[in-house]
Amino acid sequence: MKNDLKQSLKERIALIDKSLHAYVCKKDNAQSVVYEAMEYSLFAGGKRLRPVLMTEMCRICGGSLEEVMPFACAMEMIHTYSLIHDDLPAMDNDNLRRGMPTSHIKFGEANAILAGDALLNRAFEVATEYSGDTPARALRAVHMLAVSSGTEGMIGGQVIDLSSEGREISVDELRNLHILKTSAIIRSACSIGALIGGASEEEMSAADTFAVNLGTAFQIRDDILDVIGDERELGKPIGSDAEQLKNTYVSLLGLERSKQLVEEYSDKAKAALEIFGDRADFLRELTDYLIIRNN
Amino acid sequence: MKNDLKQSLKERIALIDKSLHAYVCKKDNAQSVVYEAMEYSLFAGGKRLRPVLMTEMCRICGGSLEEVMPFACAMEMIHTYSLIHDDLPAMDNDNLRRGMPTSHIKFGEANAILAGDALLNRAFEVATEYSGDTPARALRAVHMLAVSSGTEGMIGGQVIDLSSEGREISVDELRNLHILKTSAIIRSACSIGALIGGASEEEMSAADTFAVNLGTAFQIRDDILDVIGDERELGKPIGSDAEQLKNTYVSLLGLERSKQLVEEYSDKAKAALEIFGDRADFLRELTDYLIIRNN
Repeated sequence: MKNDLKQSLKERIALIDKSLHAYVCKKDNAQSVVYEAMEYSLFAGGKRLRPVLMTEMCRICGGSLEEVMPFACAMEMIHTYSLIHDDLPAMDNDNLRRGMPTSHIKFGEANAILAGDALLNRAFEVATEYSGDTPARALRAVHMLAVSSGTEGMIGGQVIDLSSEGREISVDELRNLHILKTSAIIRSACSIGALIGGASEEEMSAADTFAVNLGTAFQIRDDILDVIGDERELGKPIGSDAEQLKNTYVSLLGLERSKQLVEEYSDKAKAALEIFGDRADFLRELTDYLIIRNN
Repeated sequence: MKNDLKQSLKERIALIDKSLHAYVCKKDNAQSVVYEAMEYSLFAGGKRLRPVLMTEMCRICGGSLEEVMPFACAMEMIHTYSLIHDDLPAMDNDNLRRGMPTSHIKFGEANAILAGDALLNRAFEVATEYSGDTPARALRAVHMLAVSSGTEGMIGGQVIDLSSEGREISVDELRNLHILKTSAIIRSACSIGALIGGASEEEMSAADTFAVNLGTAFQIRDDILDVIGDERELGKPIGSDAEQLKNTYVSLLGLERSKQLVEEYSDKAKAALEIFGDRADFLRELTDYLIIRNN
């Protein structure tokens, strides 16, 4: 990673984390355990990809970080809740995530379910805490967030993922699964950022094209890492997809073709950024970094 | 129940159900199982108490059913998701609700978790689908909904409920538990109804006093029914609270005192309705009906 990108990314993540801490922190009341569990997973080493994308897309469209931050934090909470619930014994039954015990291992299954529910719920508390002078736009942003994380977005993708374990699906079905499970949220991150930043229709469209292609490249890279990654860097065991008979780009298309596809999709993502000129340099470098990442 | 109330209630519930059906119905796509599970629990015989209260409070404050309906449906979805998750093996481990198999018995645990997540998420999709001319008020309504169902509301109450099983708590702790777990949602039902109906500050305050007291009366009646109810009418086994060593008003205060309290709180609830004059007759009769209900 280039030093400039590394430093900018670090600073942005620090800002995001500060806001997240203000929204979710331990409380000394009768239900403190759920706050503790929410905080634990929210600060368990996530890359903050979605809020970084949202805040950056907002910035390059001319908006302020301050205005977009509640939506960016809400999105990270939704991402985190989905990981907590995906890890549950009835779902993927994972004991480790990013090298740390998963929520149900640390807090018990009931508290893990409730901490997930609470993070999803808290996301909408935070995203509607708006008191600015464009409430219609804020309402539209919350709606985009909700749709992308619902049954025609992330949850729908997880339903298909679970129901297709153990049987081979077509590449089209796999693509549909990931468009819902991963890309929907990455798309709404970029769209909400652009919307709050005051983007033109053309910029909104470019932001979406960027996000669709980045989301696909990101997912394929994830599948590749499950095969060739380093357990220590990933913080989870290698080969778990294959063990759980999951369909992945690697299992359906092979490693070499998958690597090619990552390149192709990330090139398309970067091409979509042209309209933003130099302002999109951070997003260009971030795209390059994401496809060579090791965790 | 008086015939007039019975008829009005039936008509209102039919309107609510029609809207709920429009928001959640089976879909013929790869994730159809989650839609099926959402629909199953949403139409499993719920009393629609919360949407009835919200729409009625809106009506008596001068608002239209049409404008409040998305919020009323969102609230019923949140109530339903909480029941699905509460019934899970890791939580209350209930196989029956209202005489029907619970979601995880019918669809498996993973789908039940996802159907609950999906209903919570769908609630916010629906509540933010607003295109009227008072977006700031709509945003405030969604925020009230989110806060009342979160860690300082319903989820917080469920966390305390689970953590206090098997040990005796004080009446104050029990009251705190129920203020969060049950009353918070009933309060926001009435507050959102009043807000969307264009209530004055005085009417907002009266709506809240009504809701706090009704919520408490309702919860104590629930505890009583678990002891003296009829299994067929209730649709669930009697004595499950005692079996699970749950703290209830009956276990802490006895049956007679609990019955007295139901009367006292419902009288307070009705007293708060005075400001609304005759327009609140439906809510008065509904309050009387709720405290003599058998299911």
